Amino acid sequence: MPSEAPPGGSILVVGGTHGNERHAPWLLEHWRADPGSLARHGFALQLVVGNPEALAAGRRYIDCDLNRSFAPHRLADLHQQSLEVLRARELLDCHGPEGLEPALLVLDLHSTTAAMGNSLVLYGRRPCDLALAAGIQQRLGLPVYLHEADAAQSGFLVERWPCGLVIEVGPVPQGVLRAAICQQTQAALEAALAVLAAAAAGDLRLPPRLVVHRHLGSVDLPRRSDGSPAGLLHPSLEAADWRPLRPSDPVFIDRSGCPVPLGAAMPPHLPAQETYWPVFINEAAYGEKGIAFSLTTRESWPVPQLWLADLASLSRRLQRGAPL
Amino acid sequence: MPSEAPPGGSILVVGGTHGNERHAPWLLEHWRADPGSLARHGFALQLVVGNPEALAAGRRYIDCDLNRSFAPHRLADLHQQSLEVLRARELLDCHGPEGLEPALLVLDLHSTTAAMGNSLVLYGRRPCDLALAAGIQQRLGLPVYLHEADAAQSGFLVERWPCGLVIEVGPVPQGVLRAAICQQTQAALEAALAVLAAAAAGDLRLPPRLVVHRHLGSVDLPRRSDGSPAGLLHPSLEAADWRPLRPSDPVFIDRSGCPVPLGAAMPPHLPAQETYWPVFINEAAYGEKGIAFSLTTRESWPVPQLWLADLASLSRRLQRGAPL
Repeated sequence: MPSEAPPGGSILVVGGTHGNERHAPWLLEHWRADPGSLARHGFALQLVVGNPEALAAGRRYIDCDLNRSFAPHRLADLHQQSLEVLRARELLDCHGPEGLEPALLVLDLHSTTAAMGNSLVLYGRRPCDLALAAGIQQRLGLPVYLHEADAAQSGFLVERWPCGLVIEVGPVPQGVLRAAICQQTQAALEAALAVLAAAAAGDLRLPPRLVVHRHLGSVDLPRRSDGSPAGLLHPSLEAADWRPLRPSDPVFIDRSGCPVPLGAAMPPHLPAQETYWPVFINEAAYGEKGIAFSLTTRESWPVPQLWLADLASLSRRLQRGAPL
Repeated sequence: MPSEAPPGGSILVVGGTHGNERHAPWLLEHWRADPGSLARHGFALQLVVGNPEALAAGRRYIDCDLNRSFAPHRLADLHQQSLEVLRARELLDCHGPEGLEPALLVLDLHSTTAAMGNSLVLYGRRPCDLALAAGIQQRLGLPVYLHEADAAQSGFLVERWPCGLVIEVGPVPQGVLRAAICQQTQAALEAALAVLAAAAAGDLRLPPRLVVHRHLGSVDLPRRSDGSPAGLLHPSLEAADWRPLRPSDPVFIDRSGCPVPLGAAMPPHLPAQETYWPVFINEAAYGEKGIAFSLTTRESWPVPQLWLADLASLSRRLQRGAPL
C-alpha cells in the first residue's frame, strides 16, 4: 500500500438510535450470530446499538433525542451532560472517523409509524451520500428524502461521519417487532453494501438521474393557546406519504369535524408550489417536535461523475479497513 | 322516590388509563367542550383521565401498569406506594362506588397496536357486564373478549365498579392520534349509553344469544435463556385477530427463518382445541408481559332474563344519579 494513501476504516451500522424502534437491534443480534449475508462484501462492519439505555427502557430516549444530539456546538459544550449527548460523544470517540476504531461511513437503521415504506433519508448534499443513494435507488427503487436547511431539526448522527444515510422503514408501531420490517431493513442494508463493493471494484455504474424528495418544511397540527391539539389529521392523509398533495387538499379536521385544507395550514415561510409530496405523516415521535407531516418537492437530478468518483475513493478506503 | 331505593350514581368514563393511548383523552376534552352527543341520554357522566402523569410523559405508565393496579390486596397494602397504585386509590376514593362522587358503572376507553377493530373486553361473568355487552353487540356487532381465570393478569380497573367494560380499538401505534379510532371509540360509547337508556326506560330487548371469545391463555415469543426473543411473529399472523387458528398453523418464525406451528409454541396448560381465536396479536405493550398473543375459544351463549333484570335495575339507579 503506498504510504500516501489515506487510512482505511470500517462501516458503522447503528440500530436502536431510538430505543423504541426495535427492528434494527433485533437485526444487529441476528447479524452478530450469523454475519454471513453481510460479510460477503468484504468490508469491516461495526454493529452498534445507538442508545442501549433507551432500548432497555423501551423509550425513544431517556433525556433527549440522540438523533438530534450530534450538533457540533452541543458536543463541544461541556455543560451538556444529558445521557444522549454523553452517548453521542462516546459513539464518536469509539467509532467516529477519528475514533479508536475509526469508521468512515455510517448506516443508521430506523423505523417509523408513518407509511414511509422502505426509504432513505439524506442530510445535506454530500456527493458520497448522493452516490450511495443513487446506487441503492437503482437496485431497489427506494424513495429518497433529502433533509436540509431546517434550523428546527439538526444534530443528526450521520452528519458526523464522512458519508452516511438513514434507512427508514414503516409503518410499524413503536415497540412492535415485525418480520416484514426486518426484511426490508436488511434488503436496504445489503443493497448499500453491494453498491459500495461495486464502487470499490470499479464496477459501479450509477443511473443517469436520482429522484429526491427535497425537504421544504413541516406542518404542525392546529393548536390552541395552551399548546394542545385543536384538530386531527384528515383521514385522507393517513398513510399518504410520498403521494402528491395540493394546497386545496384537506390535511386536518378541526374540532367541529370540518376539513382544513393544506393552504390554510401551511406556515407562511414555506414556498408556494402547485404540488407537494408529504412525508413522515403522523409519526408518533414527531408530535412533541410540532410536526404533523413534512412537505417535500419531488426533483429529478442528473448524477454527475464527481459523485461516483467520491464514492469509489471512499469505498477503496473501506476495503482497506477490512480484515485480511 | 321510595326511601328503600338504593342510592343513585353516575357513569364514569375513563380515558388515558395508559398514557400513550391518546384517543380517549382527546375525546374527553372534546366531550367536555361539547357534551351534546353524550348528554342526550340523561345520565350523569364523570369524564376522567386515568393516568395524567403518564399521559403528560407520553408513556404507558410511570411506575407500573395502572390497569393491573386495582387488585384488592395491592390497594390495601400500604407498602404499595407506586404512582399508579396511589392513583388507583385516588380514583376509587373520588369516583368509586363508595367514593365522594359515586359512580356505579365505568367505561374504560383503550386503544391497541393490535388489529382488534372496535371491540369490547369483559373481566369475568357479571350479569350486568354481559347484558351491556349483548346490547352493544346487537347494535354494532362488536366482538367481545371475555378475560377471566388468568392469575398472571389481574387487577383491572373495571373490576372495582359494580358494572363496567373496556372499549378497545385498534390498530393504531402508541402515541398516534387517528380520526377513525376516535370515531369508533365514540360510536361504541354512544351505543353503551343508548343500551343503558333503553334498559332504564324498560325498552331494552336483548338478543337471544351473545357471542363471546373466552380467554384460554397467552402465548409468548420463543425466548433464549437470557429472556431475549428467539423468534418473530409469523407474517401470516399479523393483523389476524379474531380469525380462526389451528394447531398446525404457523405462529412464529425462528432465528433461521423456519416457521413454528401453534402446537409447538403453546404452553402445556392451555386446553387442546381444534380451533382457537387469537386476540391482541403483537400488542406493543404486552412484550414485557410475555404475551405475543392470547388465545380464546369462540362461544355462543344464551342470554338469560337475569342479565336484563340486573342491567335494568342498575340503569334506573344511574338515572337517579343524573342532574335534575
